[in-house]
Amino acid sequence: MGEYSIGVDLGGTNLRAAAIDRTGKVLQKIEGATQLSAGRDAVVSDIVAAIVKLRATLGVERLVGIGIGIPGFIIMEKGLVTDSPNLPEFHNFPIRDEIERLLQSPVLLENDANAAALGEKWMGAGRDVQDLVLLTLGTGIGGGIICNGKVLHGFVGMAGELGHITVVPGGNPCGCGNNGCLEKHASATAITTMARLMGLGENLTSKQVYDLAIAGDQKARVVFERMGIALGTALAALINIFNFPLYLLSGGVLGAWDLFAPAMFEEVRRRSVVFRSTDTRIEKATLGNEAGLYGAAYLPFQARIITAETTTV
Amino acid sequence: MGEYSIGVDLGGTNLRAAAIDRTGKVLQKIEGATQLSAGRDAVVSDIVAAIVKLRATLGVERLVGIGIGIPGFIIMEKGLVTDSPNLPEFHNFPIRDEIERLLQSPVLLENDANAAALGEKWMGAGRDVQDLVLLTLGTGIGGGIICNGKVLHGFVGMAGELGHITVVPGGNPCGCGNNGCLEKHASATAITTMARLMGLGENLTSKQVYDLAIAGDQKARVVFERMGIALGTALAALINIFNFPLYLLSGGVLGAWDLFAPAMFEEVRRRSVVFRSTDTRIEKATLGNEAGLYGAAYLPFQARIITAETTTV
Repeated sequence: MGEYSIGVDLGGTNLRAAAIDRTGKVLQKIEGATQLSAGRDAVVSDIVAAIVKLRATLGVERLVGIGIGIPGFIIMEKGLVTDSPNLPEFHNFPIRDEIERLLQSPVLLENDANAAALGEKWMGAGRDVQDLVLLTLGTGIGGGIICNGKVLHGFVGMAGELGHITVVPGGNPCGCGNNGCLEKHASATAITTMARLMGLGENLTSKQVYDLAIAGDQKARVVFERMGIALGTALAALINIFNFPLYLLSGGVLGAWDLFAPAMFEEVRRRSVVFRSTDTRIEKATLGNEAGLYGAAYLPFQARIITAETTTV
Repeated sequence: MGEYSIGVDLGGTNLRAAAIDRTGKVLQKIEGATQLSAGRDAVVSDIVAAIVKLRATLGVERLVGIGIGIPGFIIMEKGLVTDSPNLPEFHNFPIRDEIERLLQSPVLLENDANAAALGEKWMGAGRDVQDLVLLTLGTGIGGGIICNGKVLHGFVGMAGELGHITVVPGGNPCGCGNNGCLEKHASATAITTMARLMGLGENLTSKQVYDLAIAGDQKARVVFERMGIALGTALAALINIFNFPLYLLSGGVLGAWDLFAPAMFEEVRRRSVVFRSTDTRIEKATLGNEAGLYGAAYLPFQARIITAETTTV
């Protein structure tokens, strides 16, 4: 048996950890709920317990390292999460150092959307490219940028905040202080908000809006068209900026692809001269909820490659 | 005397070439008009003649290489310019191969805005960083992205088309097929167009609009505020995407900084949570018209560094 690494995906709802080998084979997996109500220390304990269990089963000798994906802004240098709406108790908490202390082992931290993008590049829809952008469409919209095979972090670690690109200058207000952010016009939350504003119902889920659209409701169809236009506007900007070969979408809203994709592609074609001039692909991500877990597990493998390169030069 | 390289900046108006050493010292420079009316072959002859002259004076032994900056989309692999409004005769012309044939020497091609960004990174406002974005504000708006010290090209060579980011979804029509492109709302041309639309005069130059604004004309002041808002919208998106430490502006319109910068910064602050959370800088580029020449000359030096790194690994 060869080397393996441990990846952890800490979400607002679920906590998952897996031991994955170099070929991307999942050797063992642990899943559970994120015990937010029990407090931060309980969540940290659950993370550590999962890692310890995997490590005990598979052996410490063959363990390359540990990677953890977490929602929110991550200050890479300090190993801090500074702003995670889903994990408010972790604000400014030195989570990396604390887990390293408890495990007596180094840990690599990554933003969850960045980890998902890296996972798709390693074992998903992006296996054949070195450069891609991933948009995760959920209650909010996250983004991960893979440039030359690696996560683009920026100088603090805040790169890839693609959900806060302005797509409608006078549009819906956003908690970030802006208005017209992509995630206020193209997330699952945006779908239900638009449905409410159009009088379709007060407490619809995005799935119910989808069902209405499929059943032929014109207003519900317009909701998904608007969503496609917002996505297309952001994608057109990203394509003009990066000229990458691949742009991936993931998240539960992907089920509505047939409803929003035509408007999205029309908007991209109109707004991106680079898209029209090249074989740029916009596709569904393929790893689903597992992408972040794969990406987190890939971090230690990649760190070893990068260290080896640096040492040689 | 040490090694030097030759940089060429081919513009729609001026053709410049310079021999520059590793420290950024200009050893010799040749400047002239771009003889577009005399046809493509005449322009190519002028480029080759300038290079031959510099090479003859400074010696072929110490020449590291030749770099040329050209406006338009450059298909890197083929050494073609596919769309250059300022140089229509060069459309799909294999300019790199033709110059290499005439010189019997390899040539590196780069988009002019990319070359300017690289020049600013090497010897200008970006000397202290490895990552920056440059926006060149002229009759149009070009962009160059330096990531990890190198030009970000994308998979075809079309990255950095920042003038065609949508900033006003229902805005002014653009020759690229889109409407609301940054360059239709924040270039020198956009300034004169807005002034005309506001009834300030039919044939004003951007300098005249500037003079009106300085003299207190409220409509002229609004023109620059609108320009600042458009620039700020695009910069906010770029900052949320890249989280780079530095964003540079260059071009003749920079003279109006005091008129557009307040609106620009206000818009960036409002629209970019990453800007508000970090020490991101938005500054004037410092090399002016020389940036592209420096960047073109730096290409051969950089290629040698990259080759050395690759060989070592």
